[in-house]
This record gives sequence, C-alpha cells and structure tokens, in this order.
Amino acid sequence: MEHMANVSLSLGTKSYDVHVANGALETIGHLCNSAALNGKAAIITDTNIGPLYAGRVRQSLEDSGYTVSLHIFTAGEAHKNLNTIESIVNEMVQAGHDRTSFVVALGGGVVGDMAGFLASIYYRGIPFVQIPTSVMAQVDSSVGGKTAVDLAAGKNLIGAFHQPRLVLIDPNTLSTLSPRLIREGMAEMVKHAAIRNPGMLHTLRNLAEEIEPGFTPATIEKLPDIIAANIAIKARIVEEDEKETLGIRAFLNLGHTIGHGIEAALPYGELLHGEAVSLGLRAALYLSRRHAGLSAAEEQDVLDTLRALELPLTLPEGVDIDRALALTASDKKFQNGSIRFVLLQRLGAPILSKNITKQDLRDALLELTH
Amino acid sequence: MEHMANVSLSLGTKSYDVHVANGALETIGHLCNSAALNGKAAIITDTNIGPLYAGRVRQSLEDSGYTVSLHIFTAGEAHKNLNTIESIVNEMVQAGHDRTSFVVALGGGVVGDMAGFLASIYYRGIPFVQIPTSVMAQVDSSVGGKTAVDLAAGKNLIGAFHQPRLVLIDPNTLSTLSPRLIREGMAEMVKHAAIRNPGMLHTLRNLAEEIEPGFTPATIEKLPDIIAANIAIKARIVEEDEKETLGIRAFLNLGHTIGHGIEAALPYGELLHGEAVSLGLRAALYLSRRHAGLSAAEEQDVLDTLRALELPLTLPEGVDIDRALALTASDKKFQNGSIRFVLLQRLGAPILSKNITKQDLRDALLELTH
Repeated sequence: MEHMANVSLSLGTKSYDVHVANGALETIGHLCNSAALNGKAAIITDTNIGPLYAGRVRQSLEDSGYTVSLHIFTAGEAHKNLNTIESIVNEMVQAGHDRTSFVVALGGGVVGDMAGFLASIYYRGIPFVQIPTSVMAQVDSSVGGKTAVDLAAGKNLIGAFHQPRLVLIDPNTLSTLSPRLIREGMAEMVKHAAIRNPGMLHTLRNLAEEIEPGFTPATIEKLPDIIAANIAIKARIVEEDEKETLGIRAFLNLGHTIGHGIEAALPYGELLHGEAVSLGLRAALYLSRRHAGLSAAEEQDVLDTLRALELPLTLPEGVDIDRALALTASDKKFQNGSIRFVLLQRLGAPILSKNITKQDLRDALLELTH
Repeated sequence: MEHMANVSLSLGTKSYDVHVANGALETIGHLCNSAALNGKAAIITDTNIGPLYAGRVRQSLEDSGYTVSLHIFTAGEAHKNLNTIESIVNEMVQAGHDRTSFVVALGGGVVGDMAGFLASIYYRGIPFVQIPTSVMAQVDSSVGGKTAVDLAAGKNLIGAFHQPRLVLIDPNTLSTLSPRLIREGMAEMVKHAAIRNPGMLHTLRNLAEEIEPGFTPATIEKLPDIIAANIAIKARIVEEDEKETLGIRAFLNLGHTIGHGIEAALPYGELLHGEAVSLGLRAALYLSRRHAGLSAAEEQDVLDTLRALELPLTLPEGVDIDRALALTASDKKFQNGSIRFVLLQRLGAPILSKNITKQDLRDALLELTH
C-alpha cells in the first residue's frame, strides 16, 4: 500500500481507528481480523457502488476467512427508509446472520447512514464497518456514529448513535466521481477548516484547481493527508461530546441549519447537500460578522474558498424565502424569540449562540439573494 | 397511596427506579418530575388499554405541567412492527415532539417493546417511561431495557437495549385481566423462582388459589411485594450483564428456548407466551435432571406450582415435534453438535450448558407428549 494516514477515535470501549490509504480497499479482510471481528459479514451497498467495488471487498473478506453475503439496494436518498431496512434484514436472516455477524457499509452517505442504523438494531445491535466512497462520506459522515433513515415527516428522523468498529477510506474510490460530487463534498472540508483549522483553507483553494475533470491520480496521491486532517478535526469534537448533549458537537452544524432549510425548500435533488451547506455557510458567516465579531477579512477568506470550489453563494431561482425560513426553524424551535445557532467569533473559534432571532435568519437568507 | 414496594436498578448513568404501588397510576406526573424528565410527553398505548387508563395518565402528566399527546395503535402482536413505528413517529412529529420529548409506554408487553424501541430511535434516542398493565409486563418485560419489533423473518428481530427512565407498576390495573392472562404471566414468576428464589414457589401456589375469577381487591392488596420480589430477581441479573454478553442474563431464558419453538410451531395465538414457557420449563427441568444433577424432588416442586397455576404441561394436539424442534434451534445454531442451553443444577442455581444435543432436545419435546 502507498501513502497512509490513520486517525484514532478515543471513545472508551467504543474506540476505533480510521485507516486512510490509497489502495486500502483490498486490506479490509485483514483489518477486520485485526479489529477482532468474528462471525459472518454482510456487505450492504447500493446499485451505484456495488458493481464497482463489492467484488473486491468480498474477495478480501473471504481471503481472510469470512463467510460473506451481499445486499444491494437501489441508490438514492429516496431509498434510505424503513422499507429498505426491513427488506435487507429479511435477506440477512435468510442468509443466516445472527447476533454474532457484522455489517460492512460500502458506499456514500446514504449507504453509511442506513447500513449503520440497520447494524444498530439488528438483533439489538451488531458491529459495523464503514467503507465510505464519496468525498462527503470520507471527510465527514462515515466518522462519529450518527446513523439514521428518513420518514415521510422528515429526514433522519429515526436513527441511533452507533459507532463503527473501524473505518476504511480508500481515496482511489474518488477517481470515478464527477466534479460536482467532489465539490459538494469539499463544502464539509471548508466547514471543518472554519471551525478548527483556518490554515486548511489555503490547501483547499489549491486543491480546487485540480478538480476538473475530476481527481487525477496525482491529486489522489495527496488526498490521504487532507482527508485524515478533516477526520481528525471531527474526531476530536466527537470525543468531547459523542451524543451532542454538551453544545460542542453542535459546532459541526455550522452552515447546516439554514443550509437544510434551503435544501428542503427546493425540489428534491436540485441542490446537493454540500451545495446547500455552501449557502448555509455564507449565511452563517454573515450572521457571525453581525453578531459574534467575525472580521470581514476572515469572512472573505472562507467565501473565497467556496468560490474557488465553484460552490453556490447565491440562492438558485425560485427559492421562496418564507418557505426556506419556515423550514430552517419551525416556530416551536424558538424560545423567547430566539434559537440556538452556531456562529464564528473568529475562524477556528465557534460558539453556540442563543440569541439569533427569526428576523436575523430572514436577513441572512435575503443576503443570499444577491 | 397504599402499599408500596420499590426496586432500584443500578446501571451507572442509566440507573432507574421501579415504583410498585396500588393506585400509583395517578402519580405518574409527579414521578416524571422527580426523574428530571422535561419536555413534552407522548403516551403510546393500544386499543385495549388506552380506553381504560390513558385519560388518568394524561391528566396526571398535565397536572404536573407536561404537554401531552396520545398515540393509540391496534392491540395485538401483529401490530408490533415497523409500520406502526413509522405511523406513530409521523404523528409525534406532527404533534411537535423533538429530541427533548419523552415517551410513556402504557400497556402490556407489546406496547412496552414497541414504544421502547420507538423511543430508542426517535431523533436517535429519547427517554421513555414504562407503565406495564399485564402480569407478564409487570413482573418481567417492563424491566431490563430489551425493546424490539417483529419482522416477516421472525419475532423481535430488530430492537435496541434502551433502559427506561422509570417504571411505574400499579397492580390495580390487573383487576380487569382474565384468569388465563394472569396465569400466563405467572409462568415468568415461576421461572424467576426457579432461577433465584425457590422459596417463592410456595407463595405462588398460594396465590394460584386466588385467581378464579380474576384477582380480587384482597389479592391485589398483596401483589406489590411479590411483583417487587420478581423484579428484584431480574434487576440483579440485568445489573450483572446488561447486554447479555456474559452468559448471566441468559439465565432469564430458562424454559424459553423450547418454549419459543413450541409457540412458533402452532398457529399464532393458540398458546399464549407464558403457556409456551410453562411447557418449556418442564422440558428444561427434564434436561436439568438428566444433564445437570437437578433432583426429582426439586423438579416436582416446580411442576406442582405450574400445575397449581393450571398452566399446560403437555403439548396441545397437533404439535409436530420435528417442526417444533427445527424452530427451537435451527441447524446453524449447533456448534460441533451442541447448543447453549440454560439448565438448573439445583433450584436457584442455573448454568449455561454447552452440551445439549439435538437428540436431547427431541427427547425433551417427546417427554411433553404425555
């Protein structure tokens, strides 16, 4: 294997390692052995990723002595639901999986969220392994143990905190991604930089120049370090506040509150999640300057990075501000007229403000119209 | 309030109290306050129990300052599934429940299993309170944190370990139960006695004489102590092995392995769970005498109690032994020809044997034919 960069999460009996290396995919069997995973393995993947990598993952697991079954569901957030859970659970029971088995989640954020949730409830909880294959999942969602599925009433409404037993990241799997998917995933890297490592913004702007027409082998060679740096930022925050009860893990929501509102106000799929986060970050920077003392130069530093990544900074046509506002925070979320909202006092210094009003949110959304 | 008997479960940050008292139902609001439960309350109950008690529970919660919503599903194990979960979650979201809310599970084992599982996954987990209203749920399933729903491929296939924040038991709610439901719940009391407190068998035989035509007020007056004694047995075992990983909590499965096989081999509902457990206990006693040194006198002591409770000791017509055997333990459960099985060396002294063969199970099932 080539370049390698590992990150450990220290969470007591739930501690685990994130292995980042080009070509790592074929070491999954060995890593599962090292992580003391016994029993049968159930690979869960989708119709996009399964055909690309499931064969190699299965082979590696079998070479290390595992009995393996493969479960493929139709790609897309629309299938991140309880129907898919039920059908895969029934398949797994037929395949003979019991409480001694483990799940291997192979794919992007949708696969990781859903397969992780399934593992958390199968026979009241079995171990799982994350093999994220999108930028978004590699730098963010595969680490930290948040799992969920969507319901009619909303996204990620039911789920569990269930930490993976190990995470394997092979940046080679990013070679097939479109520039748009790369850029949207990098929005979360910008978020990490703004929260904890402003120096990384410069690295991201340099990387932005290498995206078209997708990550080249030369660029992918450099990715393990920057991916590991992002995971380390998230890891330290999750270690401090695993279940988001202390107001620290909430920092990772920078740009996400308004971002989710905008995403939900548009027809599904019009904006990718990371694109909505880019807009949400701009709104959060605006509010941070007005309410938390962020300087204009610091705001510009982040905006320049988002711009270099060709991420959206103004609302697409047809977004209804009132609807986006209502979807950002329902009235019942406001206490005495205010809502909890992550702001930056400086780059690298987030706070959880309790003083953002509905009018503030409206002002921020209006700022995104030009 | 009248007679009162409390049991505490010591589980670190997940510790909680079980309050047992006649008339306790109307103190639920006060107890929730004492347990530091804030936020809105969602009462989940079924069409049998809701009409009887939901009004009083709601009133008590509202009197203590809680905003309350009520969610009623069709009674019966057939509705302990993901469809019911999905529909109640959607209702709860509409009612404005978020991660600060809590669930009140009001009903028998089906309600507790399902509402507890729902609480474990709603917004990745919110607190819940158990108010069990059947003998089975009061002496057994409401305590210990096992929650689950059924799938096509099997019962309790998905679920979570999610401890309640408090359990309130009002034996007055047993006054409306039929003798058959009382007797089946008492099968679990016999199991507890056999595992940890053989002296209780005598008490249970005395109680058996008072069941027809159902528990009278005079009998109900005596129930808090015996219910608390049962919960204390389970509590000490759960404290030692919360997630059933050490082979201790498995003792609570005495009589359940073969019992489940018999239950599953019959048309649904022909035998109640506790009736199947009675048969399973007889089978386990038989195997204990042959393989673990249990004396014939001790075996008789338990059988006499089951007989006094008019619980079944021979298989109903039409049970196919081979089918019951296959449903007791599929071939893949046997390792080197043997299965793990709870036996009694003496009354009060269970062991987890690894040496029971398929032929042993068949012999035990055949013993139940006469």
